[in-house]
Amino acid sequence: MSNDYFDPKLKIFALNSNRALAEEIAKEVGIELGKSSVTHFSDGEIQINIEESIRGCHVYVVQSTSYPVNQNLMELLIMIDALKRASAATINIVMPYYGYARQDRKARSREPITAKLVANLIETAGATRMITLDMHAPQIQGFFDIPIDHLNAVRLLSDYFSNLGLASEDIVVVSPDHGGVTRARKMADRLKAPIAIIDKRRPRPNVAEVMNIVGNVEGKVCILIDDIIDTAGTITLAANALRESGATRVFASCTHPVLSGPAMERISDSPIEKLVVTNSIAMPEDKWIDKMEQLSVAPLLGEAIVRVHENESVSSLFE
Amino acid sequence: MSNDYFDPKLKIFALNSNRALAEEIAKEVGIELGKSSVTHFSDGEIQINIEESIRGCHVYVVQSTSYPVNQNLMELLIMIDALKRASAATINIVMPYYGYARQDRKARSREPITAKLVANLIETAGATRMITLDMHAPQIQGFFDIPIDHLNAVRLLSDYFSNLGLASEDIVVVSPDHGGVTRARKMADRLKAPIAIIDKRRPRPNVAEVMNIVGNVEGKVCILIDDIIDTAGTITLAANALRESGATRVFASCTHPVLSGPAMERISDSPIEKLVVTNSIAMPEDKWIDKMEQLSVAPLLGEAIVRVHENESVSSLFE
Amino acid sequence: MSNDYFDPKLKIFALNSNRALAEEIAKEVGIELGKSSVTHFSDGEIQINIEESIRGCHVYVVQSTSYPVNQNLMELLIMIDALKRASAATINIVMPYYGYARQDRKARSREPITAKLVANLIETAGATRMITLDMHAPQIQGFFDIPIDHLNAVRLLSDYFSNLGLASEDIVVVSPDHGGVTRARKMADRLKAPIAIIDKRRPRPNVAEVMNIVGNVEGKVCILIDDIIDTAGTITLAANALRESGATRVFASCTHPVLSGPAMERISDSPIEKLVVTNSIAMPEDKWIDKMEQLSVAPLLGEAIVRVHENESVSSLFE
Amino acid sequence: MSNDYFDPKLKIFALNSNRALAEEIAKEVGIELGKSSVTHFSDGEIQINIEESIRGCHVYVVQSTSYPVNQNLMELLIMIDALKRASAATINIVMPYYGYARQDRKARSREPITAKLVANLIETAGATRMITLDMHAPQIQGFFDIPIDHLNAVRLLSDYFSNLGLASEDIVVVSPDHGGVTRARKMADRLKAPIAIIDKRRPRPNVAEVMNIVGNVEGKVCILIDDIIDTAGTITLAANALRESGATRVFASCTHPVLSGPAMERISDSPIEKLVVTNSIAMPEDKWIDKMEQLSVAPLLGEAIVRVHENESVSSLFE
Amino acid sequence: MSNDYFDPKLKIFALNSNRALAEEIAKEVGIELGKSSVTHFSDGEIQINIEESIRGCHVYVVQSTSYPVNQNLMELLIMIDALKRASAATINIVMPYYGYARQDRKARSREPITAKLVANLIETAGATRMITLDMHAPQIQGFFDIPIDHLNAVRLLSDYFSNLGLASEDIVVVSPDHGGVTRARKMADRLKAPIAIIDKRRPRPNVAEVMNIVGNVEGKVCILIDDIIDTAGTITLAANALRESGATRVFASCTHPVLSGPAMERISDSPIEKLVVTNSIAMPEDKWIDKMEQLSVAPLLGEAIVRVHENESVSSLFE
Amino acid sequence: MSNDYFDPKLKIFALNSNRALAEEIAKEVGIELGKSSVTHFSDGEIQINIEESIRGCHVYVVQSTSYPVNQNLMELLIMIDALKRASAATINIVMPYYGYARQDRKARSREPITAKLVANLIETAGATRMITLDMHAPQIQGFFDIPIDHLNAVRLLSDYFSNLGLASEDIVVVSPDHGGVTRARKMADRLKAPIAIIDKRRPRPNVAEVMNIVGNVEGKVCILIDDIIDTAGTITLAANALRESGATRVFASCTHPVLSGPAMERISDSPIEKLVVTNSIAMPEDKWIDKMEQLSVAPLLGEAIVRVHENESVSSLFE
Repeated sequence: MSNDYFDPKLKIFALNSNRALAEEIAKEVGIELGKSSVTHFSDGEIQINIEESIRGCHVYVVQSTSYPVNQNLMELLIMIDALKRASAATINIVMPYYGYARQDRKARSREPITAKLVANLIETAGATRMITLDMHAPQIQGFFDIPIDHLNAVRLLSDYFSNLGLASEDIVVVSPDHGGVTRARKMADRLKAPIAIIDKRRPRPNVAEVMNIVGNVEGKVCILIDDIIDTAGTITLAANALRESGATRVFASCTHPVLSGPAMERISDSPIEKLVVTNSIAMPEDKWIDKMEQLSVAPLLGEAIVRVHENESVSSLFE
Repeated sequence: MSNDYFDPKLKIFALNSNRALAEEIAKEVGIELGKSSVTHFSDGEIQINIEESIRGCHVYVVQSTSYPVNQNLMELLIMIDALKRASAATINIVMPYYGYARQDRKARSREPITAKLVANLIETAGATRMITLDMHAPQIQGFFDIPIDHLNAVRLLSDYFSNLGLASEDIVVVSPDHGGVTRARKMADRLKAPIAIIDKRRPRPNVAEVMNIVGNVEGKVCILIDDIIDTAGTITLAANALRESGATRVFASCTHPVLSGPAMERISDSPIEKLVVTNSIAMPEDKWIDKMEQLSVAPLLGEAIVRVHENESVSSLFE
Repeated sequence: MSNDYFDPKLKIFALNSNRALAEEIAKEVGIELGKSSVTHFSDGEIQINIEESIRGCHVYVVQSTSYPVNQNLMELLIMIDALKRASAATINIVMPYYGYARQDRKARSREPITAKLVANLIETAGATRMITLDMHAPQIQGFFDIPIDHLNAVRLLSDYFSNLGLASEDIVVVSPDHGGVTRARKMADRLKAPIAIIDKRRPRPNVAEVMNIVGNVEGKVCILIDDIIDTAGTITLAANALRESGATRVFASCTHPVLSGPAMERISDSPIEKLVVTNSIAMPEDKWIDKMEQLSVAPLLGEAIVRVHENESVSSLFE
Repeated sequence: MSNDYFDPKLKIFALNSNRALAEEIAKEVGIELGKSSVTHFSDGEIQINIEESIRGCHVYVVQSTSYPVNQNLMELLIMIDALKRASAATINIVMPYYGYARQDRKARSREPITAKLVANLIETAGATRMITLDMHAPQIQGFFDIPIDHLNAVRLLSDYFSNLGLASEDIVVVSPDHGGVTRARKMADRLKAPIAIIDKRRPRPNVAEVMNIVGNVEGKVCILIDDIIDTAGTITLAANALRESGATRVFASCTHPVLSGPAMERISDSPIEKLVVTNSIAMPEDKWIDKMEQLSVAPLLGEAIVRVHENESVSSLFE
Repeated sequence: MSNDYFDPKLKIFALNSNRALAEEIAKEVGIELGKSSVTHFSDGEIQINIEESIRGCHVYVVQSTSYPVNQNLMELLIMIDALKRASAATINIVMPYYGYARQDRKARSREPITAKLVANLIETAGATRMITLDMHAPQIQGFFDIPIDHLNAVRLLSDYFSNLGLASEDIVVVSPDHGGVTRARKMADRLKAPIAIIDKRRPRPNVAEVMNIVGNVEGKVCILIDDIIDTAGTITLAANALRESGATRVFASCTHPVLSGPAMERISDSPIEKLVVTNSIAMPEDKWIDKMEQLSVAPLLGEAIVRVHENESVSSLFE
Repeated sequence: MSNDYFDPKLKIFALNSNRALAEEIAKEVGIELGKSSVTHFSDGEIQINIEESIRGCHVYVVQSTSYPVNQNLMELLIMIDALKRASAATINIVMPYYGYARQDRKARSREPITAKLVANLIETAGATRMITLDMHAPQIQGFFDIPIDHLNAVRLLSDYFSNLGLASEDIVVVSPDHGGVTRARKMADRLKAPIAIIDKRRPRPNVAEVMNIVGNVEGKVCILIDDIIDTAGTITLAANALRESGATRVFASCTHPVLSGPAMERISDSPIEKLVVTNSIAMPEDKWIDKMEQLSVAPLLGEAIVRVHENESVSSLFE
């Protein structure tokens, strides 16, 4: 993408969750980030200063609702309120990682549907569009009545593995749970590989869960794929099970590296050879381990912003 | 459930999609169906007559948005409008089958999200609650901001197979596609059986799709499970593939027997030994074939209505 | 109107009710119809494909909610949803015939107000403007909070009769019922003619209705005018009564030829010499009879679209 | 109706437009009016004091939006706001006369639809139900999404004329304009009489309007009926025309005696023998003339309140 | 500001409250006022005629909700409705004086919050922006969800006193009540003066209120400042108290000269030497007294309109 | 209040901000707190479990949006969502301290109005009522359209000082800034004392701010009163200034002890003899210092809950 894009009506602002990614996106677009600061009062309340006029502008706000999720979400809502009252023409949220997405239905009585609540809050605050990436369930698009551009990182992740030079016939793409088989199939299509599924089940009450494998992995290079890796329990148990079933090598990948709690230790200790993720969530340096590889979604998001702003189709970006 | 329930404030009305089921539900509850008629003017417009006072009542309207879907949906919306303007205290929709559910996300550019549109239409018309069954994606609950009681038929279907007297060790529950593995796992848990997945894929462009099977089915009794069987293409190809891979017997089951177009012929001609469905969608007699078994959801829905009306927890009904 | 109009931001799409009229309107405007298809899945659900980018465009969707009304209405709502989610700048509905308009008030207890329900559904789906023609009651404009351009066909119909070469003094414009007198007066003004009213009444209970005529029709050429002719019962009984009261010739006219059920047979058999209608509703060929004349509203609607798009006043079109 | 009705949750409040009618309604219901005062600050702003607790009550507010219409409407909106914030369970507006009803559609470019605006304002303020009487167009019911109980006074007015002892055969019910023929027909049905219409038209440009009469009135007793009599221009010109065409006696009637500007003088000077109205609008004493007769709608409205509060059908009241 | 501004999409309309100010504002902007008339039917209903096309235009409507407040508010709401239905691109309210602002919280049980009600009414009618001046409480901005540009007149009023040539050291700016101290401090900052407060209190029940003065005013020139002077009771008692406490001269000032009831007589009779106000509210000639000075806010409002229309920052105008 | 209150439809739940206060309130009401837990997933997302049925219940949720404010607010919104979807009859928020209240207007360009945003979020989530205490500006009541019961603690705080046995004539109640004078006057009325104001101002640019005192404090016992004490900068500088001006003793009081950052150290080091606060915000033990006194608002809030639930007037509680 050319770096000399210029329309004074297009502004990109970063909040606190992904400032580095926002910088990179702005560079892709070819403009400077808008001047603003987000600070916290001594009692924890958020203070936002937008330091340039945005009256009549098309504003893109880059923010993931990653850790600390409540604070990042409130930063976003307050920013939207400020932009709305300051007469922005449109308020476009660029949310590489959509937090609270896993509470997307009532699985048990009296549960909230937090993913819908968050959608309602964002619309109430005044957002007019959302650009996002690999939401936990694609149905979350329907939680919104504003337009959503839902991009995905499967090509980015698949290309990484393609470039490793592994022979297709040796690869199996593995879904770590029952709900992720469609995703695994998509990567497998790009890699021309078969799939397998980790079928975690409890044979009888009061008996330990078993990581059964449905599909053939013996003598194969296994690539585990998930949308989110959080505490890394499932993925590392899956990796163990794959090795025990005869997999020769195990790779793991996901779009959103939440990696909370014991995640890094578990991954370090696991047979996972390489963990490939995107920068949809900023990685603090102290979490970094050598077996991680982080791919940038900035070119994808930057191109989406330009196409949206220019009223061009973004469909080529999500197929 | 006792048949002498009586609260004059509780009314159940049937529209045209499932009158027989509605009768059965009312009987379960212990009351008569409310008097109403839904007819069509000569130009096709719907005319609704509610022939008893419902002012201040808690009204339950039984309607599936099955074929003819647009007409059934409009009947429902018009009924809701009439009830709202006639001062019903609450308007509770009992929708055993939620149509348009498969368009629940934008899979390609410029697609509608019809499942969300329908939710918006129902809320706009004035419904105050929805009781439904096995929605295509559980996330559709979040398309609503009114309370949803989302029941499921997995116990009903599983119990049927349990009662067949098959040994657990011989059964495999099979998901006919990548998206249905979680559902298959739930039935498998009740039957204490392993799972398999039909992994439909196209090996190379311009080459026919292959019904690959992930998991072991040789010498097994296979039970295919899906939420909806529509044209029966996927399920019958799956059945063939299972037989070719050595399955000894093949059963199929689903909650919602849409069964449109060539479905009945395909099922007749397939190796499926028995197709087990519920009466969430009324079966016209001419579609009936001997290998079908239809289980009634009336006890489940009737109990849900009573519990909702009595402010009791319905959680026991969906676990 | 010139045929070389070109603004790439202006798009006209046709749905299934009036494709021929839509083609004609697009021709009047000077552009091609947008590429799209509306098909039905085998289970009756509607599938819409918009086959060109409309991001940032001003889209006009031509659809009458004529027979099959529920299907045509759902096509429209789903199209609006798709356009909204695909980031159309404005979504303008061109609805030559607004169905369900006759249920525009509660005439009896527990009736819906379907005309308002439809308005709410269209606004909820996301329409931003409506261009329509001779709604059954002009108050239906107030059922919407979006701008409505309400055109009328009285000039078109009157001009037809002016051109027949009848002497003004011989003409009486006749309202077939009590509610249509204002409409009859408007046509009579253009034709410089007096009016009469068919005063259908039941003299005593259990006695047949009498088609009494208020006003003088003896020795006159009578032109019956209505907004909608549906089953043609009222209009043909009126024609008979006029002939019995000494009318020399009887013409009939309306904007919207619903013509359902026994309509064509009744008109064929009636003393009506000529039935003059518009193409707001598509006429299937098998309904066609020689005494019908169909006038096109395409020039009127085409001009309205251009003026709306160019921000010019449309008032000259509805006076 | 018994006068000893007592439910402490039912409260009726009067604002300033119809205090006498409100007193009469409360007496019909059998309770005291709620204690409140509506005063005006020295700068014209309205001050409302509700002097008893209404928390959790079902409140009925009696107010017509008659002259001074803007002040009466604002009194109502402010009262609704106060009741909503004070936690009334339901807020029911009893509006015998709905002002601004004649601007119920756009007749010309850039006109407001004030009748809809008023409906939106009342719903926004927080009303939960409306009981009203003979709205100018019955379609205004559809301007609301809350339940409306739309009563009518045709029986009340007709009974008055029935009791005058006129022979049916001598009566003609006359609509003073083209839009009121349906109303005239309804009264004529109750009086078993034929109808006639005043067909006001301008034969040629720059020529005076002619009050043509469609129908036979010679030698007849004419009863003019309208919903609203405002400046009385139309009705008195109609009365003159009827006398000139040979009518022996002329009566006039309407539900809503707006009677503004020159109305009383015109009626005094006209051949109208008796003007029969209801008390939907309070009559200041200085407007009173001997030929007026005012019938009370308090029994009708009182019964409606009781039936609504008791969740009984009100349909018997509007047929 | 240059007088040759021209963008045909920018229109300014005046309603009846401040026509002279609106003329002056239009002149500042450099355009003619839009052609329209606001008249009243004989029964008091408002009739609005917009006599030029505004389709697609950015319309600014100048109206204060001063006396007669209910009529002026309804004029505004009806105008907004007409503009919305006539397809204005944006509807911007320029409201120099926001009436009903003093009922901005519930001070006692069962009070309305009329300032919020008015905000809701204006948003419901369809306004898209508000430009206003010195609202009674700045929090009223938050009663709206549309953008508000809140200007203030403190610089205008302060400059008047600066130009009187009084030595700073002799001036005290005085708040006439407890709630206005912040406003007094702002003027004092511009005049580099100290402040004092009138501390009206009732020492014991059934004892007259005392106008205690907190701060030192002896030998000083006192400038009383308030946002609104209504009946002038507080301000004239304050002036008396200041003189009794040794003030040498007393000036008074406010943004909004409501001046109702006994206000003019009280001011005439008071020791106030000069009353300095703005023209946010039109002054009828018969209220005029020599000791009044009226400063024009037209330059401020005109500049705000141009900056809003040009998407420039208006912040310089309210600091 | 009696401790044996019992209505199974009344439920009180505590979230994490004020569990001790919630316990105390429930005890006042005479019931047990509802069973629920609010925990955090390892990635920071909030998980709420409501462990008893609340279908059809009137639920009161006790939560202050104090530190950590974003987390506490999200807990509340998620709880409301869960209660709404679980069919609570009403959802009543008991919010002793309303955070983000100080951003209640746009003081500068491009600022949010966070207090309104929070109100919108709470209403969108589904709350039906709010009970709160001494909001920073009483106008924030108008940010809501649901009923608000706004209690105040001035009586509680005043009674504390009354009981100290100080002679009235020696007391001055002091507002620490220009905006708090009305609050100071209210306490002064209860203590029959005069008031003074700290008039912080900057005499010239680039010169330090001066804590000028308006009013007479020499030889007096000064009681500083504020709604919120946050970093305690203003209040401690005020205390110093009062001592320097001859005050004999200085007390300080506020409703909401935010006390963030350097607050406790500043208060310890200041001449403030006693700081009197309420428990609207929970005090961590490590913040506790001997000169603090914390008064409980539980009796006030408990009584409010009972009165609201019983539909009794709460006005006696806020006067």
